[in-house]
Amino acid sequence: MTADIVIRNARPMGGEPVDLIIRDGRFSSGGARPTQEIGATGYVALPGLVEAHTHLDKTLIGMDWFENRVGPNRNDRILADRKAKRDLGIDARRQSARQVLQTLKYGVLHIRSHVDVDTEIGIANIEGVLETREALRDLVDIQVVAFPQSGMLPREGTLDLMDAAMRAGADIVGGIDPATIERDPVRHLDAIFALAELYGKPIDIHLHELGELGAFCLELIIERTRALSMQGRVMVSHAYCLGMLEPTRQQALIAALAAEQIAIMTVGSPAAPALPLRLMRQSGVAVASGSDGIQGTWEPWGNGDMLERAKYLAQRNGMTNDADLAETARICTFGGAGGIGLSGYGLSEGDFGDLVLVPARTLAEAVAVTPQSRTVIRRGRVLVRDGVAATDLPSID
Amino acid sequence: MTADIVIRNARPMGGEPVDLIIRDGRFSSGGARPTQEIGATGYVALPGLVEAHTHLDKTLIGMDWFENRVGPNRNDRILADRKAKRDLGIDARRQSARQVLQTLKYGVLHIRSHVDVDTEIGIANIEGVLETREALRDLVDIQVVAFPQSGMLPREGTLDLMDAAMRAGADIVGGIDPATIERDPVRHLDAIFALAELYGKPIDIHLHELGELGAFCLELIIERTRALSMQGRVMVSHAYCLGMLEPTRQQALIAALAAEQIAIMTVGSPAAPALPLRLMRQSGVAVASGSDGIQGTWEPWGNGDMLERAKYLAQRNGMTNDADLAETARICTFGGAGGIGLSGYGLSEGDFGDLVLVPARTLAEAVAVTPQSRTVIRRGRVLVRDGVAATDLPSID
Ligand SMILES: [Zn+2]
Ligand SMILES: [Zn+2]
Repeated sequence: MTADIVIRNARPMGGEPVDLIIRDGRFSSGGARPTQEIGATGYVALPGLVEAHTHLDKTLIGMDWFENRVGPNRNDRILADRKAKRDLGIDARRQSARQVLQTLKYGVLHIRSHVDVDTEIGIANIEGVLETREALRDLVDIQVVAFPQSGMLPREGTLDLMDAAMRAGADIVGGIDPATIERDPVRHLDAIFALAELYGKPIDIHLHELGELGAFCLELIIERTRALSMQGRVMVSHAYCLGMLEPTRQQALIAALAAEQIAIMTVGSPAAPALPLRLMRQSGVAVASGSDGIQGTWEPWGNGDMLERAKYLAQRNGMTNDADLAETARICTFGGAGGIGLSGYGLSEGDFGDLVLVPARTLAEAVAVTPQSRTVIRRGRVLVRDGVAATDLPSID
Repeated sequence: MTADIVIRNARPMGGEPVDLIIRDGRFSSGGARPTQEIGATGYVALPGLVEAHTHLDKTLIGMDWFENRVGPNRNDRILADRKAKRDLGIDARRQSARQVLQTLKYGVLHIRSHVDVDTEIGIANIEGVLETREALRDLVDIQVVAFPQSGMLPREGTLDLMDAAMRAGADIVGGIDPATIERDPVRHLDAIFALAELYGKPIDIHLHELGELGAFCLELIIERTRALSMQGRVMVSHAYCLGMLEPTRQQALIAALAAEQIAIMTVGSPAAPALPLRLMRQSGVAVASGSDGIQGTWEPWGNGDMLERAKYLAQRNGMTNDADLAETARICTFGGAGGIGLSGYGLSEGDFGDLVLVPARTLAEAVAVTPQSRTVIRRGRVLVRDGVAATDLPSID
């Protein structure tokens, strides 16, 4: 579903005002001017925001309030999370659609979602999110990561379910803390890299391991990426350890990540170590960002707005000047696109005709103030106008 | 200006639904039921939110976008800030009114503002904010701190201006990093405590000094509070050092703060050390919070919503369960009230009839999701209804 349109006087990534023309679903300046126009004076234009890491199957948006009495450590949370899936009957199809439609209003047009696979629910959540992907395919691109949230090696049968998830249509093989949860870093990583090789799919690993333990696991990931020639097809999510090493060790690891084209996803959590964003990007590492879970059993907050996420990244890193804020906006657009491997992404001639218009004088203002009244266009079709969804969007339930 | 009113089925601090009656400006259950009613089924009621630390004179709300090219350290920022006051011609009266009216919609009914005093602007900003305080006295309580932002000892004449600010009507004597900015901790603290004694006013000190240097300055503040019997009249803002000490040292210092009834204000900045909120409160320290500057030359973001601030506090401290979120809501209400010395504050019989109604099922949801459509009542008068200001509020410019 595409439409031809002229977007007048938009400021691409905060630059000088131009008219952007979308024709047959792509930016295209040549030929006759489309008759449909939209005025964008006073608006900054960004390509579709990229949500590079969330958990669509587990949001509680629109459900009863979940009273969180969960303890502070990761195992408490994994247990509570599995219990909630059972007790609350979270419907992965419905809940994923709710989150996608909520974040569409912010201009999120590309989503990579980790989706739980475990021995209690099997691959039901994978199937639910795949249904949503199909139902909303004209609105948003969704990548599905088969994610062994409850652990893979310690829970017999999970690896077979991961295999089943890939056969069912998951796009990416997920992994989880190879040491602290899996208790056997080599065997865990060998298993998921083997699965990725078998299906010819990329990898995305949740790595919360701290300090030198995390650095060791990163080294194992780097070695396997090199050995299997998976450059450009591996992402490490969180990688807190990168913010906890002494400078020469940190620089060496970052250089190795860049050499193997391993992308890093960081949410800029205020309670976790801050990653060296500037050094990583200057070293050529693809840096993406995401919301992680929103309004779920892990964390009660979050709205999935990737411009607000850019603000969190800036706040976490003490970045307050305009150039730094523009940098965090790039992480949540082009950085994410590179990290999750999108093609045809951008505002240039020939790129897909997707964009979000934000009422702001500069890119920095768009990040700092995160205006809500945005206009969202995909393949030339106006999906959201001044914060209000177009009337012909699919309904949720 | 007061009005009698019944607020029906509100849930005070998330508790069981009750009818709250305000009569002659105070909560009062006895006597005839007022005829004016407001339905609050589905709303949590909190007393007026307390902004315990901001800079009303320096927000750029409603002005041209300030392109921030400022370097990362504090001295760069102080210089840029002074230059901006000069170049942009920030009108303290107008800007303070803009911020007050913006945050009124969130339910902020009590504000302590630091206001710059320096040798370039003299006490003009103090006079401007005092004008706003007078103009908006039926809406919000404002406390004015005379704040030597550019340094006091190193800039001759500043101490005299601080004295002039107190004579002009400032409520509180401010101080600033006694070591790193003032270069002479004893002389700085002696000077501001002397001023406080002379005018019989409280003290509020910006203390960013880190680690043991900060701890030493805190000790000097504790000693002077004790010697001058200023218990309950001293607040330390930021006090990052409290989050950087080894546990026994940290506990001893916190016990001493509690003993001298010295309050601590923390904004929960993601880029600064986190304070031990739970330990501080369990030890009996009054903990308040604030927005610090919003949309100014220091930081481009911020909206002054003290419920969102409660969320920041929780996020910074990895607090995700309902009990912890309720705790951060208390910091931004009762904690702030204790910290800045309000009387008649609360939702109990005899307290001032001020409250904010937030559409939420629990206090935790109010913090996590920070709904915007709030109703704000002061002394029984409805100032804001479902996020929309009453038509008879004063205009800004
Ligand atoms: Zn995750
Ligand atoms: Zn301040």
